[in-house]
This record gives sequence, C-alpha cells and structure tokens, in this order.
Amino acid sequence: MNHAISGVHCAAATPVTADRRPDLPLFVTHCRALLEEGCHGIALLGTTGEANSFSSRDRMALVDAAIEGGIAADTLLPGTSTPVIAETVELTRHAVGAGAKGVVLLPPYYYKGVSDEGLFRFYADVIEGVGDDRLRVVLYHIPQMTQVPLTHTLIERLLGAFPGIVCGIKDSSGDLENMRAMCERFPALGVLAGADPLMLPLLRMGGAGCITATSNLRADALRIVWDGWQNPDRAGEVEAAQERIDAWRTLSNSHAQLPTIKTMLATARNHRGWLNVMPPLVELGEAERRDVEERMRRLET
Amino acid sequence: MNHAISGVHCAAATPVTADRRPDLPLFVTHCRALLEEGCHGIALLGTTGEANSFSSRDRMALVDAAIEGGIAADTLLPGTSTPVIAETVELTRHAVGAGAKGVVLLPPYYYKGVSDEGLFRFYADVIEGVGDDRLRVVLYHIPQMTQVPLTHTLIERLLGAFPGIVCGIKDSSGDLENMRAMCERFPALGVLAGADPLMLPLLRMGGAGCITATSNLRADALRIVWDGWQNPDRAGEVEAAQERIDAWRTLSNSHAQLPTIKTMLATARNHRGWLNVMPPLVELGEAERRDVEERMRRLET
Repeated sequence: MNHAISGVHCAAATPVTADRRPDLPLFVTHCRALLEEGCHGIALLGTTGEANSFSSRDRMALVDAAIEGGIAADTLLPGTSTPVIAETVELTRHAVGAGAKGVVLLPPYYYKGVSDEGLFRFYADVIEGVGDDRLRVVLYHIPQMTQVPLTHTLIERLLGAFPGIVCGIKDSSGDLENMRAMCERFPALGVLAGADPLMLPLLRMGGAGCITATSNLRADALRIVWDGWQNPDRAGEVEAAQERIDAWRTLSNSHAQLPTIKTMLATARNHRGWLNVMPPLVELGEAERRDVEERMRRLET
Repeated sequence: MNHAISGVHCAAATPVTADRRPDLPLFVTHCRALLEEGCHGIALLGTTGEANSFSSRDRMALVDAAIEGGIAADTLLPGTSTPVIAETVELTRHAVGAGAKGVVLLPPYYYKGVSDEGLFRFYADVIEGVGDDRLRVVLYHIPQMTQVPLTHTLIERLLGAFPGIVCGIKDSSGDLENMRAMCERFPALGVLAGADPLMLPLLRMGGAGCITATSNLRADALRIVWDGWQNPDRAGEVEAAQERIDAWRTLSNSHAQLPTIKTMLATARNHRGWLNVMPPLVELGEAERRDVEERMRRLET
C-alpha cells in the first residue's frame, strides 16, 4: 500500500532566541541540514518542536520562514493543533495555503476522559472549518502527554467521514501492538512511528515510516534503514544503522529528553542558541550538559 | 487574615451559540443573576467555563461583554492562562486593563513531569510580561485535568518573588489536607476551594472562600454558608444550606459534570441555549437530560 505521507520525518526541534521566540534563521539552517541528511520530510511544531509553547503567530511565522528560506513546502508536516477549534482551523488553513504536505493534529488535551463523539466533533469541525481538498491530516496519538488516547473506533469513524483527508497517524505511545493493529485494520492509514527504534519493526508490519526526535541528529542512519530494509544484501548496513540510532536515542533520553536533544544539537550544529528551551521546559544544568557532550564525543568516535 | 480575594465565587459556565461562540447576552444575564443570588465574584473562563476551548479573541470578548453589560469589573476573576506565555500575557493584560479583580492562572498543561523551576519561569514570565502592579494572581491547582500539580515549594517561591501579586490559589484537587497545609504555611495566600462541599471546612481552617461549579445553580445556599458559618445562632440554617448545596452537587455529578450543569442551567435560566457545549465535550443525550430535569424538580420541591 502506498501511503499519501510516508518516509523518514524529523520531529524537528525549534531553536529559541533569548527572548523566547523561534529563531527563524537557525531553524531554516536546521531544516536544510535535515533534508540533506536524508529526511523525506520535516514534522515541525510537534512535541519535540515545543509547538504548544508558541503563539499562533510564531507558529505560522516558522512555517513561512522555512518556505521563504528555500525549504520545499511539500516536505513540511507542521503540527497545527491547539485545544481550540477556531485556532486550529486558522493554523491548519495557513499550512495548507502555504503548500504543506500535511498537518499533524493532536486532540484537544485539556479535558480528560472525553468521548469519541467529542473528539470526532473536534476533528470534524477542524476539517470542515478548513474546507480545502488539499488538506492531509496525520492524527497524533501521544497519550503520555495528552492523556487523551485516539481509539480505533474514532479512527475508523474519521477515515469513513474524511477519506483521503485523514491519511495517517503518528503513534508516539511506543506500543508496537497498537501500531500493528492499526496497520491491519486501516490499510488506508499510514502509520508513522513516533520512536526511532520502532520504525524498522513498523515497516515490516506495513507501516509508513516515522516522525521521530532522534532524526534531529541521526537522520542519516534512519534513511539507511528506510532505503535498505527490504534488501537482504544491505541487512548488515541496516543493522548497524539501527544500532547507531538506538545508541543516540539512549543518549537523548539520559536526561530530560527535549533539553538533551537541544544540547546535542548545540554541538552537532555548532550553535549555542540551540541550548534555549521554552518554559515549562528547562535547559540542562552545566554538569548534565558536559556529560551529554562527553558521551556524544564517545558515540562519534 | 484578610485576603485580597475572598468570598463565594462562581466558576461560571459559558453559554455557547449554535456556531460555537460564546453567547454574550445570555452570559451577561447569567452573571447578573449570579451576583443577585449572592456571589461575591464571578470566576469566568475556568474549567467549567470551557476557557480552553475558546479562542483568545472570544475570551477577551466575554470579559468585555460582562463589563459592558453592567457587571462590575471588580467582581470578575477570569481564567487567562493558555500553555503559551505570550498569549497568557495578552489575555492577562487585557483583564487587568479592564479592571478585573484578579486572574486565575493554570500552569501550562501540555508537558508532563515538568520541574518547579520550569513552572516558576512560566508564571514569572507572565507576571513580568504583564508588568502591572494592579495584577492579582490566583494560582489554579487542578491536577486531575492538567496532570501538572502546583507544589508548595513552587508556591513559596512565587509568593517570595511576587508578594501581593500572587495572592490566592484555587484548589480543585478535592484534597482538604492540601488546603489545610497551604492555609497553615502561607498565611498571605487566600485558599479557595474548588468543590462546593469543601468551602465550609476550608473556612474553618482559615481559607478564603470558593470558586465552584454548583454556585452556577445554588449561589444562594453558598452565600448563606459564607454569611452564617461563624454565627452559632445560624448553625441550623448553615447546615441546611450545606445539605442543599451537596444535593445539587450530587445531581450535577450524576452524568458528565459540565454538560449536566449546563442542562440544569437550561431549566434554571429557562433558556435552551444553555444545552450547547464546546467539543470535546458533548451535551447530554435525551434520556439523561430528562433524568436530570426530573431529579431537579424533586430537589426543588
């Protein structure tokens, strides 16, 4: 099955200025590097991208800056959800108008224990509010943050109501059995792994690729896996790449994940601006930062 | 101890039009009734007010409509948080400029497991961003929704950094021991109960009052408790009022709480517009609605 949205996507981190706005030039440089390193697409403004800490204005400015900076619009998969339908429509319409390949949509994440009917209405209102046949929606299942899981009943209903528009899901739950079940039940749905170690097993189940955080640093290795996984002659190369991905991911989880990834990016991209994060996140302390840098050096040798 | 913000406050529900915008005239009518029924203040745009489902524009319009409709600005305690500092500053500055008594501030609620340092930075950035000595902040502790509890360490630090500005906390956890501990440790902090049955025990501990949902319907009874709890001659009256509050609250929790409160308001205010809710919430079904109406009739006789 060919999926509308497939491949290696980076859950791109967002560099932040000292006054807590997106650093647009640094972001464009990062996007360019990600595509050169092998990403098919850039899923900006997700959890790793700190989307929910930026104003709508700054979120739209980031998409515009990428495109004005020469990043092909059809490589972009911005996160455009907020808990508010009207704002989600505005952000999504902007992304579609800019030519983005698709958008990644969290459910509204304030109320807990909400029904599938309520979540369906949220997504339906957004899709109908955007009212554009070019819209391609990747649902975003990340219950550890939202506490609002996307059930298969909801997904089935959305696929039935909006065929061709709802075309993918990013599953960041880490639950490979959930991904397997979705691949089997919903052939039209491109399932994208939210965790780097899971892209390869997911591809073997018929999945569509990944949107991951480690690809900020090791897109090259993820691309090797993507290109080679079906080729028995490349099995050793794929295995080595996967080990490399896993080692970098382990490092990124050695301290608070997102500040650690940004600390690693400060080294990898040679720019200290990458150390900044948006509250409520906090950058790593001095000792943690040195630990990460030291371990990164060991990984690179 | 006199607290800057004390008394019976209604966590006012927000009526919604068919196209999912705040129904401004119906809201103003509701505010007027709440004050007549005995509320000292109106804590609009909290969890019961579905704040996080409305755009910033609609949230500001609701505050403006109340004031333009003749509701004294210094009775208003709007919720002005979003997970975004810049938007929270904008909403808060608007409320302060409009003359609101204070604002109720949720922590940013997307990321989980965040540190006190990160939450301190969020609140500090908002307070400094607003930059107005008239600002009065009521912190909002509702971990069952946010999954981001406000620790006593954080509260202590905020009180130290912003004395006089951070002046209250709404505790919706239902944990009376937490409220007792805050009353003892932070005499400058007005602790407001987020649940109707807890105002009376909280007042006996030195608390400052309440911000509750049932006061949409039974502000009269809460006001009787407030006015009479220290007067032995009124013990019987206070006890009867408390029983009435508890019975109405039990009914409001008999189905999904917020749609049930709105269903009760549709009857109490004699306006079917109150039945509407914002996604991801869903109005009660026909059978549930009839059940609520029937039980309400029994309570009223």
